[in-house]
Amino acid sequence: MAVRGGIDLGGTKIQAIVVEEGTQPLGANRIPTPKQGGPPAVAEAIADALRAAALEAGMQPSDLAGVGVGSPGSIDNEAGTVTRALNVSPEWSGSFPLRDELRSRLDGAAIRLGNDVRVGTLAEVRLGAGRDRGSLIGVFWGTGVGSGVILDGKPWGGRGAAGEIGHMVVRLGGRTCTCGRQGCVEAYAGRKAMELRARKMVDHGSHTKLFEIMEERGREQLTSGIWARALEHEDKMATHLIDQAVAALAAGIASAVNLLDVEAVVIGGGLGTRLGEPYVERIRNEMQPHLFRDDRPPEVVGSALGDLGGALGAALLVG
Amino acid sequence: MAVRGGIDLGGTKIQAIVVEEGTQPLGANRIPTPKQGGPPAVAEAIADALRAAALEAGMQPSDLAGVGVGSPGSIDNEAGTVTRALNVSPEWSGSFPLRDELRSRLDGAAIRLGNDVRVGTLAEVRLGAGRDRGSLIGVFWGTGVGSGVILDGKPWGGRGAAGEIGHMVVRLGGRTCTCGRQGCVEAYAGRKAMELRARKMVDHGSHTKLFEIMEERGREQLTSGIWARALEHEDKMATHLIDQAVAALAAGIASAVNLLDVEAVVIGGGLGTRLGEPYVERIRNEMQPHLFRDDRPPEVVGSALGDLGGALGAALLVG
Repeated sequence: MAVRGGIDLGGTKIQAIVVEEGTQPLGANRIPTPKQGGPPAVAEAIADALRAAALEAGMQPSDLAGVGVGSPGSIDNEAGTVTRALNVSPEWSGSFPLRDELRSRLDGAAIRLGNDVRVGTLAEVRLGAGRDRGSLIGVFWGTGVGSGVILDGKPWGGRGAAGEIGHMVVRLGGRTCTCGRQGCVEAYAGRKAMELRARKMVDHGSHTKLFEIMEERGREQLTSGIWARALEHEDKMATHLIDQAVAALAAGIASAVNLLDVEAVVIGGGLGTRLGEPYVERIRNEMQPHLFRDDRPPEVVGSALGDLGGALGAALLVG
Repeated sequence: MAVRGGIDLGGTKIQAIVVEEGTQPLGANRIPTPKQGGPPAVAEAIADALRAAALEAGMQPSDLAGVGVGSPGSIDNEAGTVTRALNVSPEWSGSFPLRDELRSRLDGAAIRLGNDVRVGTLAEVRLGAGRDRGSLIGVFWGTGVGSGVILDGKPWGGRGAAGEIGHMVVRLGGRTCTCGRQGCVEAYAGRKAMELRARKMVDHGSHTKLFEIMEERGREQLTSGIWARALEHEDKMATHLIDQAVAALAAGIASAVNLLDVEAVVIGGGLGTRLGEPYVERIRNEMQPHLFRDDRPPEVVGSALGDLGGALGAALLVG
């Protein structure tokens, strides 16, 4: 394959890579998603990260066959816009012409946009933990909870918005989600929702090391690494919130499996990748009592591509 | 098409038809599912019903191109068996050779077995409310709650057990389902689960007209007609239980739509068909707050084939 760029645009970080084939990038750069300046600042940061990754590979953006971008929100490939990427920036409520903004910042490079979790799932099926699987759900457990659905070896997109496993209802009348609805998987398992919950519990007098660790590390939000550290310290609040997250994820994924009876489930995303196999095993075990066909559960495995899966999948958008 | 038989085997009744094409049977017969005698008694009743339907069409079973049977439980078409059709008979926990048992009772007619909800959905897509829809979920609200999933115009079966929308979790740690799991859609919306709940509420001193109406009608269980009658009487318990059923169904269906983003949802089954459009409208309205893309909900419509959908779909199994 030609040398391509790949961008994974997340709520916490922007991962840029330059890759030729396989899963080893020729160059990579990872920077925090800017919290100020809205979509234009995000476009600027993406271009910076891609230029740095290209530089590491000894190239210029204009040397690339193209750059794929995996983004949250609704993607319109005709118009080249991304709409409502609120996990990335609270100011990203409308449509932003990300394709043209990136093209002009990257010396006219060809830009392809895709849904972040769908490209991440595609990467796992083509290059990672889902190889040779005809049907699979890729679950991305991070700032939010999204999924990609592969059926008969192909991504299933529905009318353009399939895969919202994070907004399946697992507790009618339950906790309010960051989306404003109630009882969604993401209301319990999304890192953003978990942080809001933790802050509320602290306001109500509960104790936790989560925010101490955050300050020690000079961060402004609870990253996956901070959650992992607090769990290592057996922090009660972190343990409680992660227990609830695992229970909600397991119920949501099992529900999706009861509906679709897929062969495999791949768990990735920032938190999924950071917490790793012990938590994949917990999700697998907690799915079991909800599975209608509990005699032959799907294979449940961790992402093989980890943090780079989204960017590798985005690079696959460049044909 | 040739003249074919179709059987819809349900927990409450057996519907047999003989049909040539379209949706108008040449003959039809409907009998209660025998509560005694286990699978052999059910096979005998199916054969009786089919013979009666053929007689009405002026034919013998041996005149038919074949007979399709839509059945609950796990279908093995190679072996010709139906396994764990516990909604049909509490004695049907193992495998029963339904194909051969019917063939010998029906003068050697060719028998084809299919999953009840999957053939019901196929009928709605080919002949009913889902015509011209590329993607659709057919929801069958009756003794249990099942569904058929149509994607790209074709049934999606997964590894053979797709469509268990009734066992999607809508309340973590919630009511115990007839399947033994907790918080499933069917725990709130399945007619069998609702009857168990009503009997328990009566045991605890609550009042209802449900069982009076049942006795007046000389029935031994709460049929869809009895629920409908109690709702007309504004019976408090019936209203409460149906409210919970609608809420659970709406959350489960909306979750499935969030995952698959299908074009349409068809509501059928014994209760769905009996309660009709006012309740389809309630389900549609109560789905709305759970839909991630609430700006363009799927079309939600009642079954066009009603009680005959299952049998018409079963007849479609005979090619």
